Amino acid sequence: MSKSALQIARASYVPKMPQVLRGNVQPKEGAATESVSDQEEIKKLFPNTYGMPIITFEESQREMGLENPVNVGVILSGGQAPGGHNVIAGIFDGIKRLNPDSRLYGFILGPAGLVNHEYKELTADIIDEYRNTGGFDIIGSGRTKLEEKEQFDKGLEILKKLNIGALVIIGGDDSNTNACVLAEYYKSINAGVQVIGCPKTIDGDLKNDQIETSFGFDTACKVYSEMIGNIQRDCNSARKYWHFIKLMGRSASHIALECALQTQPNICIVSEEVEAKQQSLDDVVNDIATIVAKRAEKGLNFGTVLIPEGLIEFIPAMKALIAELNDFLAHNQAEFDMVRRSGKRDYIISKLSPKNSEIYASLPETVARQLTLDRDPHGNVQVSLIETEKLLAEMVKTRLDEWKKEGKYKGKFATITHFFGYEGRCATPSNYDADYCYSLGYTASMLIAAGKTGYMSSVRNTTAPASEWIAGGIPITMMMNMERRHGAMKPVIQKALVKLDGNPFRYFASNREKWAIETSYLYPGPIQYFGPTEVCDQPSKTLQLEQKSK
Amino acid sequence: MSKSALQIARASYVPKMPQVLRGNVQPKEGAATESVSDQEEIKKLFPNTYGMPIITFEESQREMGLENPVNVGVILSGGQAPGGHNVIAGIFDGIKRLNPDSRLYGFILGPAGLVNHEYKELTADIIDEYRNTGGFDIIGSGRTKLEEKEQFDKGLEILKKLNIGALVIIGGDDSNTNACVLAEYYKSINAGVQVIGCPKTIDGDLKNDQIETSFGFDTACKVYSEMIGNIQRDCNSARKYWHFIKLMGRSASHIALECALQTQPNICIVSEEVEAKQQSLDDVVNDIATIVAKRAEKGLNFGTVLIPEGLIEFIPAMKALIAELNDFLAHNQAEFDMVRRSGKRDYIISKLSPKNSEIYASLPETVARQLTLDRDPHGNVQVSLIETEKLLAEMVKTRLDEWKKEGKYKGKFATITHFFGYEGRCATPSNYDADYCYSLGYTASMLIAAGKTGYMSSVRNTTAPASEWIAGGIPITMMMNMERRHGAMKPVIQKALVKLDGNPFRYFASNREKWAIETSYLYPGPIQYFGPTEVCDQPSKTLQLEQKSK
Repeated sequence: MSKSALQIARASYVPKMPQVLRGNVQPKEGAATESVSDQEEIKKLFPNTYGMPIITFEESQREMGLENPVNVGVILSGGQAPGGHNVIAGIFDGIKRLNPDSRLYGFILGPAGLVNHEYKELTADIIDEYRNTGGFDIIGSGRTKLEEKEQFDKGLEILKKLNIGALVIIGGDDSNTNACVLAEYYKSINAGVQVIGCPKTIDGDLKNDQIETSFGFDTACKVYSEMIGNIQRDCNSARKYWHFIKLMGRSASHIALECALQTQPNICIVSEEVEAKQQSLDDVVNDIATIVAKRAEKGLNFGTVLIPEGLIEFIPAMKALIAELNDFLAHNQAEFDMVRRSGKRDYIISKLSPKNSEIYASLPETVARQLTLDRDPHGNVQVSLIETEKLLAEMVKTRLDEWKKEGKYKGKFATITHFFGYEGRCATPSNYDADYCYSLGYTASMLIAAGKTGYMSSVRNTTAPASEWIAGGIPITMMMNMERRHGAMKPVIQKALVKLDGNPFRYFASNREKWAIETSYLYPGPIQYFGPTEVCDQPSKTLQLEQKSK
Repeated sequence: MSKSALQIARASYVPKMPQVLRGNVQPKEGAATESVSDQEEIKKLFPNTYGMPIITFEESQREMGLENPVNVGVILSGGQAPGGHNVIAGIFDGIKRLNPDSRLYGFILGPAGLVNHEYKELTADIIDEYRNTGGFDIIGSGRTKLEEKEQFDKGLEILKKLNIGALVIIGGDDSNTNACVLAEYYKSINAGVQVIGCPKTIDGDLKNDQIETSFGFDTACKVYSEMIGNIQRDCNSARKYWHFIKLMGRSASHIALECALQTQPNICIVSEEVEAKQQSLDDVVNDIATIVAKRAEKGLNFGTVLIPEGLIEFIPAMKALIAELNDFLAHNQAEFDMVRRSGKRDYIISKLSPKNSEIYASLPETVARQLTLDRDPHGNVQVSLIETEKLLAEMVKTRLDEWKKEGKYKGKFATITHFFGYEGRCATPSNYDADYCYSLGYTASMLIAAGKTGYMSSVRNTTAPASEWIAGGIPITMMMNMERRHGAMKPVIQKALVKLDGNPFRYFASNREKWAIETSYLYPGPIQYFGPTEVCDQPSKTLQLEQKSK
């Protein structure tokens, strides 16, 4: 394949990794662990993988090569994140070092590849083509969930056929939960297959006391911040637009918050705060309009608003409206379909409970339509299709028009909207992600050599220089609790939301009033790979602030 | 102001410039010049600035410092483009070298600043804050057109008051045309103020035999290409979406073409070709759908389509429809307003001529609405508001659905749309733009020292290393021809459209079939400032291909 100049130059980058992994290592085992809560239930569900110790790799005097080669399978699960290829390269280099005859097999297009026996061997030639590149295209990814015994058994057939002794699943919280269930199952039947997880997701919501960050978050946020910075510079030059910028991340607002820390926008909405304060959509609109009006008083009729993709689902009143809409339409779809187009809105308004009816009536037409027409196969509103950035821009405009009539606002308000998501999921990984991912993969191979299963590969202390990073493994059961999913209680890895008492949010909260009224924009610019270390090797601001408190 | 790590590191970059400018220079004058056409009329309109020679700066033995300081004014005109701050830094360093007591004044928020006497002195402290940064925020920009004698006279008052002997206008084709008119006027009245233009626009449509490129095009296209490459990598990993990506640039398709050369998408529409082939919107839709269907046959239900912002205005049939709509609504607005919302579309269909009525009826509802509702203050359709990327995605889907029923297409077709514009206009300039802009500004100061007016600053041979670049000046009248504007013939700089017989388009055309069916994506990645020269210092592919033919 033909390549860009950067692709060619970047191919020869040698990822930095923990110093200890450059020599021979041995696992040091800590004390027995407990799950974060619901210990009894989790222990019952994972009798073979519960309570295992945290592993840290230490220098060893013994040559750690394996007598027999180890064949490993790898799966990319869920949405793309920068650095996935380096995890795979790290596994490859690790198992080849353990024994040069080891082989690595990639399952094609996600977990479905395991179940359907679609795979390819990842040889040195292939690996070298993908070192330090973005994307998951080396084997593709997919969203099939590995949850059923039939899938596990079907997978085991091909694992046995290829003589694969260990499987590495690279995914988010759900995929790692499933990796643990699989590990437990294979151990329970003595299948002879270890399962290791790797923490991936640009959303940054897979982290906890043991896992500092999920890979891809750093790069994706830096790409979005580059764009936001560019827009802010434009905004500050043209001085005539408010830019409403939605950022990917439905379950948590880490991306929006990190981008705010990097770019110092006028406004950043944090869904977790909106939920905690029980704000309505109207409250959010008021908050934004108030800042717009304050800036207008200073002659600053421009600004930026960052909006997390999942906002709507965090607003209690919107959640209630959507729930009633889903329920109502499930029972009245036929009648609704009969209503002529121009009457659908009034029809819905007449049918909902007074409170929800009022909220629905207050929504701009396009959003009202999206809420009733764009439905998923289960009949539910597709919240991800709602153009929240346009919704807010329109509602703020309406509010400001009212205030203008009341003489409370004088200014001009013109908006431009953006949504950034796909622009960052497959970016060339930053040095941080390239190093972190390679180390995660390499560590996974060491966990395999140590005979571990049900562990997540862990690389810690990553705000220090890479040589001081700490490699090891965390028992996945340790991160679990019981949660209601689809009506039943399930053991799952706790999703990390933005902590309102955490350092990153507190730093943001203590600065946002200044950022709102003054113009304090930062322009991070594009990710750099070759320059000074303070430009090229900084972890995310979120991580730096989180680690500061430790 | 607080700064990002890259801002701090980049501040100390020393732009490369033509070797000759490092020493003492003298202007070498070529033969008398002619305008590109309409020589008689242009000559009559510019008696004082017509026919001047092309200037090239050569090494001189004489010390070129000026005995008296020269005060210079600078104006940023029109849309932002990366590198504007470096043009200003170049002017500043140039005039300070000529005489350390020289002063530079910036007029605030574009040409209006000159007319309204809003300015600030740009001192060394200020200049240093803005070296190698994106944006026009040092003094802001604006779109006021300098066209009237009253404006010129008003401007002269402040120029005289500040003892400004030369004005540099940084802008696109229109602004440079106006710069030339101003130069002619000031010369005709012996005002003692020289006027020099600088070629700016990310659109890349200000270039000709003398001006190789306008600044900002390189950086903006590289930013867009970074995003497109990231999306393509995602597309190739997820393998389930067609991404329709609209790119800024209404008057010409240089940006889309350059991005295509950098990223090798499956489809790139070039408006100039659509116009030359007299294609209808339906033809464009068919062309795209055909490629989608061909890829689907190979199991490739994903891809990328680049769309120039100005497409609609290049389609003869759409132009005719819009013209009739504008005319019809100008005469029947009141009646149209009376029609109830749901009936507006049918009303329009019933009123237009058969051909336009048919085209109008074929448009998706949202676009049909935009064409009748979103109108500018002059009552004209706001073509720039039409979401062409969504329009095409929707129409291609409809076409494929038809083909599916006819059994001509089997596949899945899901789309995601993007629009990139504001993301690139104020990016930190690439090394190319940083160097080119600084050199343009420095050269402008040398043209001032040489007593020239009505010239555009020119830096040529820019595909060679910067030390070999050629600095000089081109008489603006040389680029002019007569064109009909707002009903009257005016002397204007010819706008450069994509040449269908030029090397860049021919290279694209000879590869596009392969790019369409195979997946030949390139991933350019983010602009690099510190790495190997083949990564950091390459001019645009367009320029490289254009220069190859010379």
